[in-house]
Amino acid sequence: MTIFIERVEKLKIMGKEAGIDAFLVNSEKNMRYFAGFSALAIERFAGVIIPVEAGAPVVVVPRLEEEKAKEYSVFEEIRSYDDSEDPATLLSQAIKELMLEKAVFGVEGTLPFKFYRMLVECSPKTRMEDASIFFSQLRSVKSFEELKRMEKAASIVAEGIKAGIDFIKSGVSELAVSFQIGKTIKENGGESVPFCIVLSGSNSALPHGDTSDRKVRKEDIVLMDVGAVYEGYYADITRTVFVGKATKMQKKIYGIVVKAQEAAIKTVKPSIEAEDVDRAARKTIEDAGYGQYFTHRTGHGLGLEVHEEPYIAPGNTTVLKPGMTFTIEPGIYLAGKFGVRVEDDLAVSTSKAKLLSNLSKEFLVI
Amino acid sequence: MTIFIERVEKLKIMGKEAGIDAFLVNSEKNMRYFAGFSALAIERFAGVIIPVEAGAPVVVVPRLEEEKAKEYSVFEEIRSYDDSEDPATLLSQAIKELMLEKAVFGVEGTLPFKFYRMLVECSPKTRMEDASIFFSQLRSVKSFEELKRMEKAASIVAEGIKAGIDFIKSGVSELAVSFQIGKTIKENGGESVPFCIVLSGSNSALPHGDTSDRKVRKEDIVLMDVGAVYEGYYADITRTVFVGKATKMQKKIYGIVVKAQEAAIKTVKPSIEAEDVDRAARKTIEDAGYGQYFTHRTGHGLGLEVHEEPYIAPGNTTVLKPGMTFTIEPGIYLAGKFGVRVEDDLAVSTSKAKLLSNLSKEFLVI
Repeated sequence: MTIFIERVEKLKIMGKEAGIDAFLVNSEKNMRYFAGFSALAIERFAGVIIPVEAGAPVVVVPRLEEEKAKEYSVFEEIRSYDDSEDPATLLSQAIKELMLEKAVFGVEGTLPFKFYRMLVECSPKTRMEDASIFFSQLRSVKSFEELKRMEKAASIVAEGIKAGIDFIKSGVSELAVSFQIGKTIKENGGESVPFCIVLSGSNSALPHGDTSDRKVRKEDIVLMDVGAVYEGYYADITRTVFVGKATKMQKKIYGIVVKAQEAAIKTVKPSIEAEDVDRAARKTIEDAGYGQYFTHRTGHGLGLEVHEEPYIAPGNTTVLKPGMTFTIEPGIYLAGKFGVRVEDDLAVSTSKAKLLSNLSKEFLVI
Repeated sequence: MTIFIERVEKLKIMGKEAGIDAFLVNSEKNMRYFAGFSALAIERFAGVIIPVEAGAPVVVVPRLEEEKAKEYSVFEEIRSYDDSEDPATLLSQAIKELMLEKAVFGVEGTLPFKFYRMLVECSPKTRMEDASIFFSQLRSVKSFEELKRMEKAASIVAEGIKAGIDFIKSGVSELAVSFQIGKTIKENGGESVPFCIVLSGSNSALPHGDTSDRKVRKEDIVLMDVGAVYEGYYADITRTVFVGKATKMQKKIYGIVVKAQEAAIKTVKPSIEAEDVDRAARKTIEDAGYGQYFTHRTGHGLGLEVHEEPYIAPGNTTVLKPGMTFTIEPGIYLAGKFGVRVEDDLAVSTSKAKLLSNLSKEFLVI
């Protein structure tokens, strides 16, 4: 409970400083983060009005979400509408009660136009501003509880990848390996498996390749990039292994990628910028002569979403803080031949990086 | 190619009648529908401006989507920006060239606020209106090609469910059945398996239950609700089967649900309203004395999205037209005991319903 109150208080302080009178939270993830429950708000409107100054937040949900809201919402003022009623009526009532008729509302950049328009129509003197940055700043720094969940998510993905590795042999298809990993994740308590990409042979050279029915052969390479969710929080881990035998070249490339990943991990500490971490990985690969084959950013923030702040990418000057969590996943892709990527999840501690995932990245020939 | 031109021409006619000067299409599904390609536009902006009167549509995409756009877009005017450039510059240029500075823009209800705001800022005299209804009206009536894809999607899901049925026996878990179905769908060419719900025993009584590791027992019931995508188009089929033995009560309930589904299917023809189809299913179940246990709508439109117009629900007076496609999926849920749902996909022909899925719904004891 206190964790939600803290989040809302921090949001209010940010709002006050930015001249925002109230926030409107509508996305599933931010509802979950600030209100403690989420309502899928696509067809029907669901949201919370959080006044920055006086007044209690008001939750508006479709009738069929009312029970859930009453059970889980940290805000007590819950109002619901059925299919014959208009949510705009509830919204305009709440806006009047909270004296927000002329307020500046901080909304999410993802707020659908139809809900924006509804708000404007029910309270024409309000003004709306994109407050995404405040939401993402708060969410990018994780609490102890959130880090525990992310560690658990990472351990579940690690179990999945281990099961995948045990399952790989000449003759099994990428799809079969993927299903084995997914099954293991579910059996280990993973809520969902949003992606479970298995690429073998030259498919591994496609940074955005799709799992196919290609069968793993002798002297093959297999790249597994797997995500899972535990209590709402994501893990995202990649491993690349070799079947039967690896060439000298493959071993060399693997070594460079691991070295780049370790260089990046070693760089991590509070007060440096996100792009510094990217640069450490990129420089290692460039120095080895493979810069042009590392074609994506080094990593991305991770939490309630699989891609969020901080992005570990050139140009991102976001300053790292303790509690931030992200992936570090350099790769080298030799088109038509093979690709190697190694990805782990970590949190920024008070002095360095703390790995959330605990899975060997030793060079492995199965 | 002609199919896309037709769609755009129809959209223009609708726009002209409604006083809309141009459309802005931004969602992945509508980009695919009108422009022939899609760019995932969440972090970065991607979209097409379609002027209603003179001028060629302009596509704006991030640089990394440019190649795909050039290969697949039916519109030739493609402009791209890289991460150091602002898409607003391209948009405002295009708006000027097309003389749309004071235009009324028809946008999607799902357009994210940040893109709405970008458009307003780069062309402050434009006005935006929610044009969702025009997009959904066009998309709800399928072409011959679209129907072929949906039939294929349905046949793939049918193969999956058959494999699930073959796999079910006492001792296997819901998860294992689900993986078997998913695997079969992928092997049969399914692009993705967005859901594959298997509910056994009393879990089947939960209309929104989740697949668990519960093991199927003797004298059990198993409900499978499965969706798959083929070339962008959805199928969504549910079957309920019995293991070892079924009680008289179960057989009776199954009979009522099938009868309700058939009554609804028989009602379907052009010019009736969507709610008439719902009523036919609902009345059958009510007349049998189980009205209170049929707790959801009878069906939903199906196409590029798994839920779209026309919704087969009380109060929906949308008039059915040839080419519309939707599910019919009545169910009876006896809490704590068991539930039965039977779901098929169909298209409205010039005179009646044409089933897209071809899978036995005979009462089946495995």
